[in-house]
Amino acid sequence: MRFASDNTSGAAPEIMAAIVKANEGYERSYGGDAAMARVTDLVRDIFEAPQAVVHLVATGTAANALAIATHCPPWGAVFCHTHAHIAEDECNAPEFYSGAKLVLVPGEHGRMTPASLSQALAATGESGVHGVQRGMLSLTNVTEAGTVYTPAEIAALTALARAKGIPCHLDGARLANALVATGATPAEMTWKAGIDVLSLGGTKNGCLGVEGVVLFNPEKAWEFELRRKRGGHLFSKHRFLSAQIEAYLTEGLWLRLAAQANAMGQRLAQGLRDRQAHVPPADANMLFPEWAPGTHERLEAAGAVYYRWTAPQGREKARLVASWCTTEAEVDRFLAAF
Amino acid sequence: MRFASDNTSGAAPEIMAAIVKANEGYERSYGGDAAMARVTDLVRDIFEAPQAVVHLVATGTAANALAIATHCPPWGAVFCHTHAHIAEDECNAPEFYSGAKLVLVPGEHGRMTPASLSQALAATGESGVHGVQRGMLSLTNVTEAGTVYTPAEIAALTALARAKGIPCHLDGARLANALVATGATPAEMTWKAGIDVLSLGGTKNGCLGVEGVVLFNPEKAWEFELRRKRGGHLFSKHRFLSAQIEAYLTEGLWLRLAAQANAMGQRLAQGLRDRQAHVPPADANMLFPEWAPGTHERLEAAGAVYYRWTAPQGREKARLVASWCTTEAEVDRFLAAF
Amino acid sequence: MRFASDNTSGAAPEIMAAIVKANEGYERSYGGDAAMARVTDLVRDIFEAPQAVVHLVATGTAANALAIATHCPPWGAVFCHTHAHIAEDECNAPEFYSGAKLVLVPGEHGRMTPASLSQALAATGESGVHGVQRGMLSLTNVTEAGTVYTPAEIAALTALARAKGIPCHLDGARLANALVATGATPAEMTWKAGIDVLSLGGTKNGCLGVEGVVLFNPEKAWEFELRRKRGGHLFSKHRFLSAQIEAYLTEGLWLRLAAQANAMGQRLAQGLRDRQAHVPPADANMLFPEWAPGTHERLEAAGAVYYRWTAPQGREKARLVASWCTTEAEVDRFLAAF
Amino acid sequence: MRFASDNTSGAAPEIMAAIVKANEGYERSYGGDAAMARVTDLVRDIFEAPQAVVHLVATGTAANALAIATHCPPWGAVFCHTHAHIAEDECNAPEFYSGAKLVLVPGEHGRMTPASLSQALAATGESGVHGVQRGMLSLTNVTEAGTVYTPAEIAALTALARAKGIPCHLDGARLANALVATGATPAEMTWKAGIDVLSLGGTKNGCLGVEGVVLFNPEKAWEFELRRKRGGHLFSKHRFLSAQIEAYLTEGLWLRLAAQANAMGQRLAQGLRDRQAHVPPADANMLFPEWAPGTHERLEAAGAVYYRWTAPQGREKARLVASWCTTEAEVDRFLAAF
Repeated sequence: MRFASDNTSGAAPEIMAAIVKANEGYERSYGGDAAMARVTDLVRDIFEAPQAVVHLVATGTAANALAIATHCPPWGAVFCHTHAHIAEDECNAPEFYSGAKLVLVPGEHGRMTPASLSQALAATGESGVHGVQRGMLSLTNVTEAGTVYTPAEIAALTALARAKGIPCHLDGARLANALVATGATPAEMTWKAGIDVLSLGGTKNGCLGVEGVVLFNPEKAWEFELRRKRGGHLFSKHRFLSAQIEAYLTEGLWLRLAAQANAMGQRLAQGLRDRQAHVPPADANMLFPEWAPGTHERLEAAGAVYYRWTAPQGREKARLVASWCTTEAEVDRFLAAF
Repeated sequence: MRFASDNTSGAAPEIMAAIVKANEGYERSYGGDAAMARVTDLVRDIFEAPQAVVHLVATGTAANALAIATHCPPWGAVFCHTHAHIAEDECNAPEFYSGAKLVLVPGEHGRMTPASLSQALAATGESGVHGVQRGMLSLTNVTEAGTVYTPAEIAALTALARAKGIPCHLDGARLANALVATGATPAEMTWKAGIDVLSLGGTKNGCLGVEGVVLFNPEKAWEFELRRKRGGHLFSKHRFLSAQIEAYLTEGLWLRLAAQANAMGQRLAQGLRDRQAHVPPADANMLFPEWAPGTHERLEAAGAVYYRWTAPQGREKARLVASWCTTEAEVDRFLAAF
Repeated sequence: MRFASDNTSGAAPEIMAAIVKANEGYERSYGGDAAMARVTDLVRDIFEAPQAVVHLVATGTAANALAIATHCPPWGAVFCHTHAHIAEDECNAPEFYSGAKLVLVPGEHGRMTPASLSQALAATGESGVHGVQRGMLSLTNVTEAGTVYTPAEIAALTALARAKGIPCHLDGARLANALVATGATPAEMTWKAGIDVLSLGGTKNGCLGVEGVVLFNPEKAWEFELRRKRGGHLFSKHRFLSAQIEAYLTEGLWLRLAAQANAMGQRLAQGLRDRQAHVPPADANMLFPEWAPGTHERLEAAGAVYYRWTAPQGREKARLVASWCTTEAEVDRFLAAF
Repeated sequence: MRFASDNTSGAAPEIMAAIVKANEGYERSYGGDAAMARVTDLVRDIFEAPQAVVHLVATGTAANALAIATHCPPWGAVFCHTHAHIAEDECNAPEFYSGAKLVLVPGEHGRMTPASLSQALAATGESGVHGVQRGMLSLTNVTEAGTVYTPAEIAALTALARAKGIPCHLDGARLANALVATGATPAEMTWKAGIDVLSLGGTKNGCLGVEGVVLFNPEKAWEFELRRKRGGHLFSKHRFLSAQIEAYLTEGLWLRLAAQANAMGQRLAQGLRDRQAHVPPADANMLFPEWAPGTHERLEAAGAVYYRWTAPQGREKARLVASWCTTEAEVDRFLAAF
């Protein structure tokens, strides 16, 4: 009953096997490994993007910060949701790498809306040299609230950004979960919906520690490489990053792992709703249920592990995250304890 | 016959086994894992430094840049050797993280001398607010030239720095090799010789990708953690970093691996000298032999892999690096081909 | 009828005379001028702060950015009003100099309240290493909305900050106007109310271009000097900055200039209210009146110069700023045209 | 007998008169003043560069740092002389603004040579992503040693830079002195010799505090403006900067002021040589004579003011700088005291 985060799970067996296999013999360092060439082919194939370039790093914060720094100037505004990971959970890494300012765009359930984004876009970059310029849009899917954007919703938002001439980033720390939840293809969810650069999550979904940054427009690929090195994020034994992503993207493993996590998340949500907990919209593997006082104590006594969340008065709230290795038995034990 | 770099080797079996074992079950993320507590104990024990704090990152550049940024202000000078890794091979990462300026200190065979350091210290920080202030000393052991400093040599240099009131960093990307080469203890080579902060290398010596930063004075430990997070270098599945270092430092594995690398480096050096190549001082696992024209072609035809180096006119030069998994057979095949 | 901004006025005759006089003969550069010593004495005397240190720069943005960078770490949050000058009008200069993140605190009429600040303080710095830490409070007086904080209101806000262990900055680009409006002494408005560092405006109130940064705690004085130099803000012919501030603070000139500006601002406000314009609270020399459609055209045809502002539907809104050289005749002509 | 620096002089009467005149009435702020348009015309005319854009700041450090940041990426190397002002006297401002690394190019008497620059260019940017890339060339004329480059010498150096695809900056803090010393036209010394961006000094040559940055290629003009604002270097009462440069460039005032300074510098040099002092090459208004022990004491007792410099054993050395207002009488008194 471990629902603290999908990053408290280990690596999937296929990933670990790939790591072990990659360890054989000598291999060129710093991204010159043979597996990395295969990773590029895989990404281009899966995303139907023959020009795309992918670079690997080991943390989601590095992926986001580098993706943003490569696309937004130091005097730019990055439009992101009020509760975006880049705004709340990365200790100024995006600002450190880019110099830019985050402009927070509100919206219920973790999603900005065309209206709220339009308002933010209109209110920024209109005072000449005195204020920051419009720099970039950054969306997150699955959102921090556990909801998802459909490709159409993403396209509606990127169209607003594009009308102002700025590029669009997708923080896909849980991209596989979003794909499973919506049924969209990787291409539909990204470049076909107006995304220029993607943080392609691996760590939360069964890898040890690897994230891809996919540049659908390869023009900035070399700049990205220099920024990655300057940030200390270029691995010498790079083969161990390549091996993870290669296994992850091979034969749909990433989607199978996400499908399990989502199914368990939905089973939790449904079970809690059936038991009269209030569960706000939750489309994938993460939910923020509210319930009656005393429940935390009961669940934790039964061995459940998760984050307590700030709740309205007289209520309790939790963040529950299912992962690729969460089982039906775990969920059902949790529901029984509830 | 792979002598390109110690980072083209894979991970030692003990390290890989530890990774596989660490993968079992759930574990707290972001450094809260149980193994990390054991790593701290190990480091304190091995370095005879009960107050020391250790933090883990995945690359040597991250370790160095964060160690420097934590100890040197943005208007400070970092005194380092002309060919230090931080000066030549990290694409401004130390400057990016710290804002400081690197002041290059010359010296033969990769070693600065008390005289050259004194001169640099005297020439810096004497123009009030107009120039940079003296900020930090950064030494490297094993040096970039494959030589080592003895603890006494390090102490002589840090004493000069300390007399000017600045802290001292040791880039120990190959610290184990330096310990084996000199017979010094970890404590003798570091805090007993005046080192305040250490980059403790793992990756080049049989790990997948992990470096420790050891703060002998724990006062800046929290600042380091914030800088690490802000740089995107805090791992969520941190257990996989902890597991590597734990295995690495357990029962002297790190020294055994380095001993093998050094022995093979010395065997190469001796064999080449015996065969009339010019081999400048080389104390550990890395050497820069010079030889007659035509040799590169012959060696490469025989399957040897290494970096060609800039050579004096009419000569050829190479960088050869032995690793933990280099075998006598490999060395001897190379010498035979030579 | 020039009400665009107090920075479209020239310098007061006393200031210009001081500049001309300062030009005689040779003088030490970079702040070593004799006048600077007198400025320090004046500031200490006027602010009843014998330990205070003052440094001069030429722009308000430099003063704010350097004051913030000296007191807030790169992983810190600067709490400021949603419409603070540092948030909206300085093109990321505070972030550039400090690395910090601005956290916007709402509040009507340009003023944050103890409630809104408490909420922001509570919501920040509670997620360990993942989010930014509480770093600093920055208030503005006169506010961007033309209102003022009383010393008691400032003290209430700084007490909240102090309870969280963070220092407090006052952006006093229009400090003299705030002092005149409230009748408070410089000490009451600053350090007695919990302010640690002050941007002391000169430019908007009759100087050519000079701002002081007053550090009530001198501990960071040298760091400030290094940051100023590193930012390119240390003047070689510093005497021309010193001369301005010396004249400005001598015999109450700064307050006389502000008193004239405020009186004209109030005369404008009263006259517009008498003529049925809606004038939100305006305590000093700046007001944001709303009036009926067609008024802009009529006023501008009559020769009035000011900024049009975003207005509610069916209305017009303006920003009007009176300066030290605004005359009653100008105001009355404007009102007549209205 | 004030020879400490040309920035210990005041402003020339024509400049001060322009400031006083500029103070009349209201004027648009932030560079929208009418005088700025005239400054642009003057610069284009004098430099025979109809596309050039000029922006004004108040310090030489700001001019250099912004010029460099606008043309060199954070992973770039700025090639400059070992003793360049940007290397020794700006407290990391160029690095702060640009993120770049300064690569020091040696050369006697303050001048790099085609050979020393070629060597530095060849040794940098050849290690792929690991080291910094070639970023920019920055020359200084008059050099820090008081010598000058001819246009042909500058062209030879910029040609080497251009062959590597990098732009060229000229730190012209004493450009007028260099023009007078060589007889070159402004165009010959700058864009015709391969310079892309110029720091056009005013402060050291009779202004209060103003420097122009001339972009011969206007493509980066808007980026420069944003960087200037973000650095806190955009003046609100910008008219006072414009007025200085306008007067400075009108009817050759800048060259007349420099001619006087150079003449006095040469008179000093010749007089000292006649009196057996050793005076290294000195082409303009600055010299570094060596003389016998005891001389400092005698000169200072006679009232001379200048900087003592580090000297070879058994000798004394000084830095003497003549300015626009140095008189023959002063020089002759100094020589008499010598």
